[in-house]
Amino acid sequence: MPSSQQEETIQKALNSFQIEIPSWGFANTGTRFGKFIQAGAASTIEEKLSDAGQVHAFTGCCPSVAVHVLWDLPEGRRSVPEAMAMAAKYGVRIGAINPNVFQEQIYKYGSLASPDAEARRVALAHILDCVELAKETGSRDISLWFIDGSCYPGTAHERMADGQRLLVEYKPFEPAFYHTDIADWGMALLLARAAGPRTRVLVDTGHHYQAQNIEQIVAWLLSENMLGGFHFNDRRYADDDLTIGSIDPYQVFRIFHEIHFYEWETGSRADVAYMIDQSHNLKDKIEEMIQTACAAQELWAKAALVDHEALARHQQKCELIDAEECLKSAFATDVRPALREWRKSKGLAEDPLKAFRESGYLARVSRERGERNKGALASYA
Amino acid sequence: MPSSQQEETIQKALNSFQIEIPSWGFANTGTRFGKFIQAGAASTIEEKLSDAGQVHAFTGCCPSVAVHVLWDLPEGRRSVPEAMAMAAKYGVRIGAINPNVFQEQIYKYGSLASPDAEARRVALAHILDCVELAKETGSRDISLWFIDGSCYPGTAHERMADGQRLLVEYKPFEPAFYHTDIADWGMALLLARAAGPRTRVLVDTGHHYQAQNIEQIVAWLLSENMLGGFHFNDRRYADDDLTIGSIDPYQVFRIFHEIHFYEWETGSRADVAYMIDQSHNLKDKIEEMIQTACAAQELWAKAALVDHEALARHQQKCELIDAEECLKSAFATDVRPALREWRKSKGLAEDPLKAFRESGYLARVSRERGERNKGALASYA
Amino acid sequence: MPSSQQEETIQKALNSFQIEIPSWGFANTGTRFGKFIQAGAASTIEEKLSDAGQVHAFTGCCPSVAVHVLWDLPEGRRSVPEAMAMAAKYGVRIGAINPNVFQEQIYKYGSLASPDAEARRVALAHILDCVELAKETGSRDISLWFIDGSCYPGTAHERMADGQRLLVEYKPFEPAFYHTDIADWGMALLLARAAGPRTRVLVDTGHHYQAQNIEQIVAWLLSENMLGGFHFNDRRYADDDLTIGSIDPYQVFRIFHEIHFYEWETGSRADVAYMIDQSHNLKDKIEEMIQTACAAQELWAKAALVDHEALARHQQKCELIDAEECLKSAFATDVRPALREWRKSKGLAEDPLKAFRESGYLARVSRERGERNKGALASYA
Amino acid sequence: MPSSQQEETIQKALNSFQIEIPSWGFANTGTRFGKFIQAGAASTIEEKLSDAGQVHAFTGCCPSVAVHVLWDLPEGRRSVPEAMAMAAKYGVRIGAINPNVFQEQIYKYGSLASPDAEARRVALAHILDCVELAKETGSRDISLWFIDGSCYPGTAHERMADGQRLLVEYKPFEPAFYHTDIADWGMALLLARAAGPRTRVLVDTGHHYQAQNIEQIVAWLLSENMLGGFHFNDRRYADDDLTIGSIDPYQVFRIFHEIHFYEWETGSRADVAYMIDQSHNLKDKIEEMIQTACAAQELWAKAALVDHEALARHQQKCELIDAEECLKSAFATDVRPALREWRKSKGLAEDPLKAFRESGYLARVSRERGERNKGALASYA
Repeated sequence: MPSSQQEETIQKALNSFQIEIPSWGFANTGTRFGKFIQAGAASTIEEKLSDAGQVHAFTGCCPSVAVHVLWDLPEGRRSVPEAMAMAAKYGVRIGAINPNVFQEQIYKYGSLASPDAEARRVALAHILDCVELAKETGSRDISLWFIDGSCYPGTAHERMADGQRLLVEYKPFEPAFYHTDIADWGMALLLARAAGPRTRVLVDTGHHYQAQNIEQIVAWLLSENMLGGFHFNDRRYADDDLTIGSIDPYQVFRIFHEIHFYEWETGSRADVAYMIDQSHNLKDKIEEMIQTACAAQELWAKAALVDHEALARHQQKCELIDAEECLKSAFATDVRPALREWRKSKGLAEDPLKAFRESGYLARVSRERGERNKGALASYA
Repeated sequence: MPSSQQEETIQKALNSFQIEIPSWGFANTGTRFGKFIQAGAASTIEEKLSDAGQVHAFTGCCPSVAVHVLWDLPEGRRSVPEAMAMAAKYGVRIGAINPNVFQEQIYKYGSLASPDAEARRVALAHILDCVELAKETGSRDISLWFIDGSCYPGTAHERMADGQRLLVEYKPFEPAFYHTDIADWGMALLLARAAGPRTRVLVDTGHHYQAQNIEQIVAWLLSENMLGGFHFNDRRYADDDLTIGSIDPYQVFRIFHEIHFYEWETGSRADVAYMIDQSHNLKDKIEEMIQTACAAQELWAKAALVDHEALARHQQKCELIDAEECLKSAFATDVRPALREWRKSKGLAEDPLKAFRESGYLARVSRERGERNKGALASYA
Repeated sequence: MPSSQQEETIQKALNSFQIEIPSWGFANTGTRFGKFIQAGAASTIEEKLSDAGQVHAFTGCCPSVAVHVLWDLPEGRRSVPEAMAMAAKYGVRIGAINPNVFQEQIYKYGSLASPDAEARRVALAHILDCVELAKETGSRDISLWFIDGSCYPGTAHERMADGQRLLVEYKPFEPAFYHTDIADWGMALLLARAAGPRTRVLVDTGHHYQAQNIEQIVAWLLSENMLGGFHFNDRRYADDDLTIGSIDPYQVFRIFHEIHFYEWETGSRADVAYMIDQSHNLKDKIEEMIQTACAAQELWAKAALVDHEALARHQQKCELIDAEECLKSAFATDVRPALREWRKSKGLAEDPLKAFRESGYLARVSRERGERNKGALASYA
Repeated sequence: MPSSQQEETIQKALNSFQIEIPSWGFANTGTRFGKFIQAGAASTIEEKLSDAGQVHAFTGCCPSVAVHVLWDLPEGRRSVPEAMAMAAKYGVRIGAINPNVFQEQIYKYGSLASPDAEARRVALAHILDCVELAKETGSRDISLWFIDGSCYPGTAHERMADGQRLLVEYKPFEPAFYHTDIADWGMALLLARAAGPRTRVLVDTGHHYQAQNIEQIVAWLLSENMLGGFHFNDRRYADDDLTIGSIDPYQVFRIFHEIHFYEWETGSRADVAYMIDQSHNLKDKIEEMIQTACAAQELWAKAALVDHEALARHQQKCELIDAEECLKSAFATDVRPALREWRKSKGLAEDPLKAFRESGYLARVSRERGERNKGALASYA
């Protein structure tokens, strides 16, 4: 049971923590072998924003929704006003803008680094459109994920407004299997530096080699002032896009700890965008997103409980067991009662998942959307 | 330059080596992010058999085609006579039968091991149908890949004819990410033994953990008389389904070596089905399959060159460097001249890829199929 | 805060849980690059048993000590009576017997599977000695770890007394790097079955491939009645031999859960030997072993809290989120207060590490052993 | 059989290729479990230089020997003149200088980044000594491998002479298991840049994650002008330090290819130090080093055969199969006859291993050193 001082630390930590959810997390998804269709899955941007609004309404920590330009704003900037109005209607706002330079046939051999000049031109135009579009949605971050490329974010940089940021993501494989142009954080950092001062690195927790120490990379990026944000998810093998903390919760805790510790050491706030990028092929999508938000809050609150003074002292003296116990003790603390208190203080239900289930929303949209989803494409063969 | 005795060894090895190609290798394929469409990609079973016929015509070592029941024989046994006639027309025959118990919505939570009795019933019925179907096509092997399951091949076993075999495949992940019921060769072997004497294990070279010694598993399965066959492909990270030997040719060589060595040690032939299971998302499909068949032949011929007597002697005496040189020397030998000789002796063109390109086939089918492929589904979003 | 029923579950779970510690965990250890010497490290069997006695005195859950024949009982059976008397003096007993068939020069090319007949003879004689020796110490388990070998536990089996067991360990690499004869659980299981009914498989948690699902292997071995015991430790990369749960505590929890669940499902007790096999190169050895025992108890108690009825029901109905929450909720519970209660009920100090530190033992033995340890060999170069 | 133009390419490639061997490769080595002692293993710097001289005498491509300061030059600069005289006597020269800041007890918690100021002082002094020492030996490179640390090569940099270089090595684990301060090439590059213009990154091929694309890292470092050199070895799992190309020869070929291709693209020579860092625990050490040098030459010569013009053209046109065949065709060529020609042209025996064996050197030194090696420490327990 946390002490009252720990209690206060937790409440403060929860007040400062928000995590963005992706619009594509509410649509039917699958693997290369096919999709399993859900009756209540969202198809339109309005449905996705409506579902996201439910997640925020019940968890209180997901006020923004990342969007995918091709899928959510098919007419680009012309789609923006309606999308913003819908977001407002459902109690959320548009978050990070995700260009799509991987899906069209023209990108078969690459996008910004394709040997084909036309592919490069089309990709660049699309990214520049997204920069403009982000200005209209008021989105700070444009998240760039390339399936190829080298030395390229440069051009878009000039078009950005003050306060906007380009985030460069890295990934060692998939859909390319021999190499990807931006395979690791080192490559992303060199490219981001080349692009200009408004560019940062985006860490997707599923985009690493087995056994790689992600929290160390986070610490390096913080120390280099190059950490832009996260795409959180969990995995066992590859980029599995599972629920955060469902496989290795202690790792997420250690990542959050590095951020808290950095803030304590420097006395400044780490300006980091927390985003979810998961693919719930089997779990119900809205319920799973609520589960995700709660899991993130719990791990964030645990990480806030680490005693930084004690940890730094033990580290300096090489008292290894005591230093480790600072982390283990915080992780072992059950923060769920404090989280329930926080929810009550915000006028939220104590158990978001239970409350959502009782609301009848899922049954209603499953009825409304079910017929159309029956006709959805399930097989890729 | 091989000696004349080596030359003879190679010719003999090539005469004894055939490798089956999969019908689905000629269709448009992709990753979960989408497909890049090829104008000449095959859509119908006839097109696939026609393309496979080209591969066999130019390489002389791919006489049979594995088929996927749901995709290739949509009406099950009723589709068989026509498919067999087409195969004959294009100079190939129907090979292994691949049931599909992973794609239908009913398999969302599993097939033969689903908690849902109806799913189990449907899956079992489909597999039994495939057993019957295999009798009609004259296919020896039914290849079972489950995305779930436990203790289940038993029932199908009773329905099998003499000479037929069930092959049980294992895979550590994808599309399931936390666990798969048949994750490794040990699980597959226990299940295959439980199923009965006509069941064997199928080794897909891409279905292993990083750093796992595949040739050792092959040696164990041979020694346990439980090796049924292979799905060959190469990979760097996960189940990438790349061209055989394109990433690590020495590993394929060592696998082939274990088979040659087993045959030498026991004086009996390893009764193993060699099959390809690759997914060429970017390379032209027919050309790539020709490249594949040639690569397999080269590695098979190199492996045949290992001096077994010398190797056994060095192993017994723990002469490590000499034992290793037996393998390295065989691998270093350039067998391409001998392979060209073999082709000439079979009335084949010396350079299959060049000959295929000069034949004009690809240009023709690209014209014929191009319009339809333009309308093919590329995106899964 | 656990409910009173949970409280009872935890107390019961703690009463039933003991974990064996290894004598070699108290000696100076290192990597191939050298050792960092600790003043208080144990050198003799008496010192090791004295240190182990401390761990048991303060944690109450480590009554037995695994011994290594060559290092701890250098004269074999003749060393036994004195060792047993010492163990009694320090409040512990001799646990599993570990033969050593890897260290002598004769084993350079293998032990029981060496091509050298003399090496085979020496190794077998040593193992048979260990079987006799285990009868005298009253040890149930003989733990076999080979750096090589095939088909070999058979002979020793005949010599075993009722109630004795051979445990066969597997390991994918180190000190051999291309292959090890018993690389995975499948190979260990086939060999153990061939050896006879008194043989079981020993799971060392650090002896797996990256991303391998250890709890699934545990479930298979339980279901095949072949799980003999564990060597617990944690790791990030290879066989790092770190403190249990220091890298991935949720994995240990899931392993323990599979055992609890098996016992609930079958109504029978899993007859499993829990042992520690860690190498504390930097942490103080006795303190670290106390930390280890406490960590194991916490994770065991958490795993006992899983609601098995609810879990089985949710699994049957494919209610994935609810099934997962059964595990997550148990893991999130802070069991430390209940553990302190348990200690009080056993007359132990609430905080074993603090109590040990206050006892002055470490300072005393560091003084006594320090001079000798200064002369200890640190470098291997 | 290579054409005469290929023949010329190979001869030119072989003339330009030398690879440095490490003195410690001739001493008894092992794993943390112990060493297997060889009668002919070298103990003194003179014996090591004598053995290295044999390797160079028979292969003609290993003129320099990397030395380890603590082991080979125990009195630092005072040991230099004698070592240089011995090197000259045995027909080799002193190569890269390897400081040792990992073995002494003072480095238990780190060296240049230890929390202990005295440890930092000692480590820095040792490195500065090595810089001076390198001036006297005429060694260009000082190879820094830290088991810890951050931001540290800076100070040494000022002391370096023109033409000298600091090489910063990275490694993801071992002997530290949770994190190492310089875990990957990105961290090494940032530190090397911070240190100053004479610092470069050292790539040890065994210091990577599973599945990591090493040749891509090499290409990045070349493009950033930051590739200083290599420690070559092969591995299956961790940092196994096996013979180059013994597990994955195609990977070494691709690394060499990136260097050849870079030189072709830029028209400038890549100024890279090729060094071996292997640990032959079982193979005879001198024979294995000869095997190593020959394997490196073969792979270097194969890589020289890639048709760069054709490759660039196919890459530009996205002709994937043809681009890949440029690599595969070069790799498939048997360069051993050309290598024998090269040896004859240099007055060397055609088969270095055979010639060395016939020389009787090994038998002689085994007699001379055998008695002392019998007393060598084999066990670490």
